[in-house]
Amino acid sequence: MIAAPDLAEAPVERDGIDRLAFRDAMARLGAAVTIVTTDGPAGRAGFAASAVCSVTDDPPTLLICLNRGSSAHAPVQRNGKVCVNILAGEQAELARVFGGRTPVAERFGAATWRPNASGTPELEGALVSVGCEIQTVTEVGTHDVLFCRVVSIRSRRDGNALIYFDRTYHAV
Amino acid sequence: MIAAPDLAEAPVERDGIDRLAFRDAMARLGAAVTIVTTDGPAGRAGFAASAVCSVTDDPPTLLICLNRGSSAHAPVQRNGKVCVNILAGEQAELARVFGGRTPVAERFGAATWRPNASGTPELEGALVSVGCEIQTVTEVGTHDVLFCRVVSIRSRRDGNALIYFDRTYHAV
Repeated sequence: MIAAPDLAEAPVERDGIDRLAFRDAMARLGAAVTIVTTDGPAGRAGFAASAVCSVTDDPPTLLICLNRGSSAHAPVQRNGKVCVNILAGEQAELARVFGGRTPVAERFGAATWRPNASGTPELEGALVSVGCEIQTVTEVGTHDVLFCRVVSIRSRRDGNALIYFDRTYHAV
Repeated sequence: MIAAPDLAEAPVERDGIDRLAFRDAMARLGAAVTIVTTDGPAGRAGFAASAVCSVTDDPPTLLICLNRGSSAHAPVQRNGKVCVNILAGEQAELARVFGGRTPVAERFGAATWRPNASGTPELEGALVSVGCEIQTVTEVGTHDVLFCRVVSIRSRRDGNALIYFDRTYHAV
């Protein structure tokens, strides 16, 4: 566990928001931690993502925000399919491995995987593994927002959530 | 607190995902709870939202998924600005008020507000209140995804997060 960030001493309103102030604010927006994987002609890749959310159930669609500078960006785009593995409370160490600069082989070596019906790696022990096809991509600043159609779901019945809040992992 | 949903007895892979299976899966994607407000020529409105995420810090941008059938949809679109109030652990009751069918006046009557620099209601006691201008809107199925440029931030130093997971609120 790392210390909570040092936020403003007292409520402060800022206009003309700088990147640091924005990052501090977004550190207070708790989120589930996922590992997004891909495999296919462009190779295997995976990254930790907390900017994932449900969009609509008609048709079943979620979105993922992905930095275009990420090493996973090209394989994800070219393979056109991903698996969103929602981490359980006990999987914080895996989030660190997939959030750092660890080489791809070592990342995948840190856990057990099996391919879903589309051949994309599902994580053993994830709360839910959601297989997706990328439908459209919207560029926003440094990031791509991937709108993904859900094509498969594999769920565990039990398990706590892993939540990232105040730059620390929490089991909920 | 309500009971956890009854998920699959054992891991099950489904192809041709139905809406119920998708909803059950997304109930396992923990998320912060926010109240998104607007005010302006089209009137005041507010709704509880957990489909909010940070997109990029360059320029500082977040996104909000909003059902086009929601009563807040027209005022949000027409005012063109919102305030995303990230709820603290003790604010679950307010999430219920803004997530139900309560009339607008009663919703706002359930808490204390002050206008930010853009005239949009900031919630007293929120972890962070993020003032935004809507930049672009992308339609996806039943929902609009609002891409919002951040123009003001007001933060509390302390406070736990309110997380929605397994269809229950949790203070983290």
